[in-house]
Amino acid sequence: MAAPVALIQGASRGLGLEFCKYILKNQSLAAVIATCRNPDGAAELRGLAGQHPSRLTVLKLDVNQEEDIRGAAERVKENFGRLDLIVNSSAMLHPSGKGETSLRDVSAQGVISTLTTNTVGPLIMAKYFSPLLQKGGGAFGQQPAEKAKQHSGIIANITAKVGSIGDNGLGGWYSYRMSKAALNMATRNLSIELARSRPKVLCVSLHPGTVNTDLSRPYHRNVPKDKLFTAEHSASCLMSIINSLSIEKTGKAYNWDGTEIPW
Amino acid sequence: MAAPVALIQGASRGLGLEFCKYILKNQSLAAVIATCRNPDGAAELRGLAGQHPSRLTVLKLDVNQEEDIRGAAERVKENFGRLDLIVNSSAMLHPSGKGETSLRDVSAQGVISTLTTNTVGPLIMAKYFSPLLQKGGGAFGQQPAEKAKQHSGIIANITAKVGSIGDNGLGGWYSYRMSKAALNMATRNLSIELARSRPKVLCVSLHPGTVNTDLSRPYHRNVPKDKLFTAEHSASCLMSIINSLSIEKTGKAYNWDGTEIPW
Ligand SMILES: NC(=O)c1ccc[n+]([C@@H]2O[C@H](COP(=O)([O-])OP(=O)(O)OC[C@H]3O[C@@H](n4cnc5c(N)ncnc54)[C@H](OP(=O)(O)O)[C@@H]3O)[C@@H](O)[C@H]2O)c1
Ligand SMILES: NC(=O)c1ccc[n+]([C@@H]2O[C@H](COP(=O)([O-])OP(=O)(O)OC[C@H]3O[C@@H](n4cnc5c(N)ncnc54)[C@H](OP(=O)(O)O)[C@@H]3O)[C@@H](O)[C@H]2O)c1
Repeated sequence: MAAPVALIQGASRGLGLEFCKYILKNQSLAAVIATCRNPDGAAELRGLAGQHPSRLTVLKLDVNQEEDIRGAAERVKENFGRLDLIVNSSAMLHPSGKGETSLRDVSAQGVISTLTTNTVGPLIMAKYFSPLLQKGGGAFGQQPAEKAKQHSGIIANITAKVGSIGDNGLGGWYSYRMSKAALNMATRNLSIELARSRPKVLCVSLHPGTVNTDLSRPYHRNVPKDKLFTAEHSASCLMSIINSLSIEKTGKAYNWDGTEIPW
Repeated sequence: MAAPVALIQGASRGLGLEFCKYILKNQSLAAVIATCRNPDGAAELRGLAGQHPSRLTVLKLDVNQEEDIRGAAERVKENFGRLDLIVNSSAMLHPSGKGETSLRDVSAQGVISTLTTNTVGPLIMAKYFSPLLQKGGGAFGQQPAEKAKQHSGIIANITAKVGSIGDNGLGGWYSYRMSKAALNMATRNLSIELARSRPKVLCVSLHPGTVNTDLSRPYHRNVPKDKLFTAEHSASCLMSIINSLSIEKTGKAYNWDGTEIPW
């Protein structure tokens, strides 16, 4: 079997960086492609690439630039010819760094920027990379015995529990919540379209818990210590879910503990 | 009690125009404010204004222009000082007029335009008009006896059943589905924030059925005749739902027949 190839989008820091570390450490044959919008500024990622020169490739990709995505897909096609996994990790709470507490904080430009990065970006990733996932070897997840049900690749969109409409009891964070609800719809649509292809590509939304990263930093003091995960712990939980996926589980949103999240 | 005031956003044609007609015909004391992005091109709406000069006001409002929304809210504040109902009806399937059948048709610009019109527009309407709804007389919907549970105004966002993530079994129409899922999250968030105010403002999402308008025209031949509603029929069904609303029913998505739609 060919060596697994995983692409982590949004890998400069936070959860995305930990996904790279996790795969490099635990799946010793896998190649990792780490994308970020500013590789020069991503010191820790570049250090990691120095440690794993033959296994980790860093590519520049601003998820807001369709041309970047198209270009990166070309590069991956030339150098690897296939992909087994994409994790879309990049996102922001809001351009200001803080979610809106009420309508007063809402602006058209803020909502549009957040939707563009958090929602449109992952969908355009799927557009350009799904042909490479269809050529994957299905190295991640569980393969059922029946050939027609097997998958060649997986798309994991990192969502957030606050993006669940049904679970929303508090309100606020308009841009972020709306972006993740729309991302969940993209996941659902992708899961349907890509389950029709042969071989199949799976697509799920994953919630990492509340994670100790820059994104959640403004809110850390409101989080009980045992509820604030390290990015390492979250990445490990989510990789366990990814490695348990098969066609029966596609098109859903999962919490870090593997339970399903309502839409 | 002061005369009811209703604002219909996206009233040049289709369902929005029928909401105006319905209210003018059936709620004989109500004043209607009809907004559209190009009043000069909206011949039927201008005809209606000619018939009801003292009851129907037409305002220019492109829902993509935050300044237009702010300006219209100023005008309504000066001329009416309050609002009882807003219906956000404007939307598009996609800038091309047709929903994407597969990923091949998806473009970042297409998704962003659709989200901007269908999702961000209604939310920015709520931002600028909710202070006027908080001054409304609660003329639409049902008022419970308990004063603390009464509402002063209602926001009805016209959604679509295909915007239900849980109900999505077919896929396709990426931009439109994502825009309506995100709009449903906006509805949910608004319902929570505006239920905290005193008096309360209600917010719901409403699905009009498949309606014989320009929006659905490319697909009419796939729709059984008895399933293709006239805009007049849809507007009447949705006004019945609006007139049945109270605080217990806020924050949900309803089908034209009053049944709840899953998220
Ligand atoms: N942290 C939490 O508690 C939490 C909870 C629920 C869900 N999540 C989700 O988990 C995922 C990872 O978040 P995190 O906590 O790791 O956040 P983070 O530490 O703030 O990292 C955000 C990442 O997104 C990247 N990014 C932002 N805009 C980008 C763009 N236009 N193009 C490419 N990359 C871009 C950033 O790159 P730069 O370094 O270039 O800025 C950075 O790598 C997100 O989807 C987030 O919504 C996080
Ligand atoms: N028709 C259906 O089968 C169906 C099914 C489910 C849901 N819906 C929903 O029902 C609502 C009404 O749709 P419809 O069937 O009446 O569609 P329609 O006949 O195509 O009318 C669309 C309306 O939206 C307006 N609009 C578009 N962009 C705008 C903008 N930037 N600013 C202001 N107005 C704008 C149009 O104005 P112009 O005249 O200036 O272009 C027009 O008045 C929509 O929310 C739609 O998603 C319809």
